Amino acid sequence: MIEHPENSEEYKGLTVNSGVEQQSIVNPYLQRGRFARRQLTAAEMVEGILKGDITILSQAVTLVESINPDHFAKAQEVIEKCLPYSGNSVRIGISGVPGAGKSTSIDAFGMHLLEEKGGKLAVLAIDPSSERSKGSILGDKTRMEKLSVHPKSFIRPSPTAGSLGGVARKTRESIILCEAAGFDKIFVETVGVGQSETACHSMVDFFLLIQLAGTGDELQGIKRGIMEISDGIVINKCDGENVDKCQLAARNFRNALHFFPKSDSGWMPKVLCYSGFYGLGIKEVWDMVYEYIDFVKENGYFAFRRNEQSKYWMYETINETLRSSFYNNPEIRTALTEEGKSVLAGEKTSFKAAGELLNNYFNTLKA
Amino acid sequence: MIEHPENSEEYKGLTVNSGVEQQSIVNPYLQRGRFARRQLTAAEMVEGILKGDITILSQAVTLVESINPDHFAKAQEVIEKCLPYSGNSVRIGISGVPGAGKSTSIDAFGMHLLEEKGGKLAVLAIDPSSERSKGSILGDKTRMEKLSVHPKSFIRPSPTAGSLGGVARKTRESIILCEAAGFDKIFVETVGVGQSETACHSMVDFFLLIQLAGTGDELQGIKRGIMEISDGIVINKCDGENVDKCQLAARNFRNALHFFPKSDSGWMPKVLCYSGFYGLGIKEVWDMVYEYIDFVKENGYFAFRRNEQSKYWMYETINETLRSSFYNNPEIRTALTEEGKSVLAGEKTSFKAAGELLNNYFNTLKA
Repeated sequence: MIEHPENSEEYKGLTVNSGVEQQSIVNPYLQRGRFARRQLTAAEMVEGILKGDITILSQAVTLVESINPDHFAKAQEVIEKCLPYSGNSVRIGISGVPGAGKSTSIDAFGMHLLEEKGGKLAVLAIDPSSERSKGSILGDKTRMEKLSVHPKSFIRPSPTAGSLGGVARKTRESIILCEAAGFDKIFVETVGVGQSETACHSMVDFFLLIQLAGTGDELQGIKRGIMEISDGIVINKCDGENVDKCQLAARNFRNALHFFPKSDSGWMPKVLCYSGFYGLGIKEVWDMVYEYIDFVKENGYFAFRRNEQSKYWMYETINETLRSSFYNNPEIRTALTEEGKSVLAGEKTSFKAAGELLNNYFNTLKA
Repeated sequence: MIEHPENSEEYKGLTVNSGVEQQSIVNPYLQRGRFARRQLTAAEMVEGILKGDITILSQAVTLVESINPDHFAKAQEVIEKCLPYSGNSVRIGISGVPGAGKSTSIDAFGMHLLEEKGGKLAVLAIDPSSERSKGSILGDKTRMEKLSVHPKSFIRPSPTAGSLGGVARKTRESIILCEAAGFDKIFVETVGVGQSETACHSMVDFFLLIQLAGTGDELQGIKRGIMEISDGIVINKCDGENVDKCQLAARNFRNALHFFPKSDSGWMPKVLCYSGFYGLGIKEVWDMVYEYIDFVKENGYFAFRRNEQSKYWMYETINETLRSSFYNNPEIRTALTEEGKSVLAGEKTSFKAAGELLNNYFNTLKA
């Protein structure tokens, strides 16, 4: 890992500008709405990012998220140049069903971390169902009252375009940009109701699941497999009359965790109670997260998992592209409907139908 | 579903021949080792299968399992002709780690079912790691003492060749042949330590997990996700001094199950104790299984899941073929190693490496 330029002699004199009162270092035109914006070159963007310029970081993330094919090559160039400066962070996935109090919690968690550990915090999200207009997760920054105006934080809603794979790719690439801009703490928020958890889990070091105390049916709304990928389960709204119920829920979760196979890291997931709204138990949650980070850095799992994740995303991208090349092929789309009917009618085995479709597909590629 | 010919007027006079004392109806040459075997045609095979001829069924399963490409078309023809007569069975997946007592249990379960429900039972297996010579699951029929000599049973070890996908396909096709031969109860055994459970789960109506009472660490050796796909968990060796321990384990499993999301079928998995060796509690296990079958036939989930499974295997076959076409491409194999190194060295993003490999691949297909 190459040392971040902020820490090098060359940059020591510079103040890192960030947050809402940010003044652009590189491109003053950006501050003047009346003038047409000059497009920054990739090199200028990289320079701005490495200096920690939030406005330019934000532009670069927008470029990464763009669905305009002309932007793609430039985005890739920026990412590639930032890559050597990335990696030097702790990445935390935060999940929970709607209503679990994620925004309030992230606000409290983030403020605690910045106060106790210093550094800079970026909050990103993966939510393939999001459209900015519909108030998706993180769509409304004001729900994180304190963090959204903190000079050391950077909050971005989920990229909106397309498939889960596409959204996840963009979030992962944004992590690289944020790290290159000196963000040493990354939150990736996701909503606990679908496959986006697996994608999130595949790009973070620690996966935190926010739960509420319920009525014996604690996991209602939580999809299969999410408990199993959690490194920590935290029960929110543990305040006032709710304390006993939360502590009971925590005990039940702890018992249940014994019935899950041990994770590869050797870490036994912990269950804690807290209150995001009243700021209770926040320190304990983050002491746990950092206990985990120390534990896996010590036993080598931290680096191992980062490598596995890099490989995972390469293979995942390949597999998704192969699938979409097949299923979006116009001839296949028509044939697939017909073959599917034959299979359901019991006229053809699943394997024979698949074989015919594949022959058809490979012939169109040769043509 | 077309009525099985055994039940039609035309076949009423025939005795169904099966089991070890089987006399071949169609092909007397098969009984004489000294003569070269005449190969049955596909039509003759189908005729024999529909008459319930176990020797011919066995030959057909061997054909399905063959890795000789010349056998493939004939196997597909046989399967396709049997397909209209298949489907009329209850398919049960049975899983458990080595040592859980699967063979003894299947022997007891099978005998109970044949005595109480009549009909015919086929026992198949999925074990991609198996090689017949190494005593894989079901490799040694004699471990099912009673069932292996029962005239209404048919026991086949796991197909041995190749990938999980290949093994699973062969098992699924064998189910079709067995059903066409009048087997109305199908067990699919699998060993509870890997992905073969998912494959097994995708071809059965009920997934039964055999467990042992342990020392608070009941799931040792059981892989992630297996509890979640189980429709019933049964604790074996509940006899003698072990009874209290088993009942405690059962209570713990029941509590833990509340922390798993409800299954799509609307069924809440049940936990029971039994002893395969002493034949205790066997009836209760199978009353539960049939309670489930009645429940899902009533609410429509039985048919829905069978349809979903047919589609699943079509898509699964397509996706696996697309992947293997890519990863087994000689140019890609070399390039993949290099790109993988660049990704791990942080020189290239996972997404860029994937993109380059994919361009390379599609170019070789056009060439």
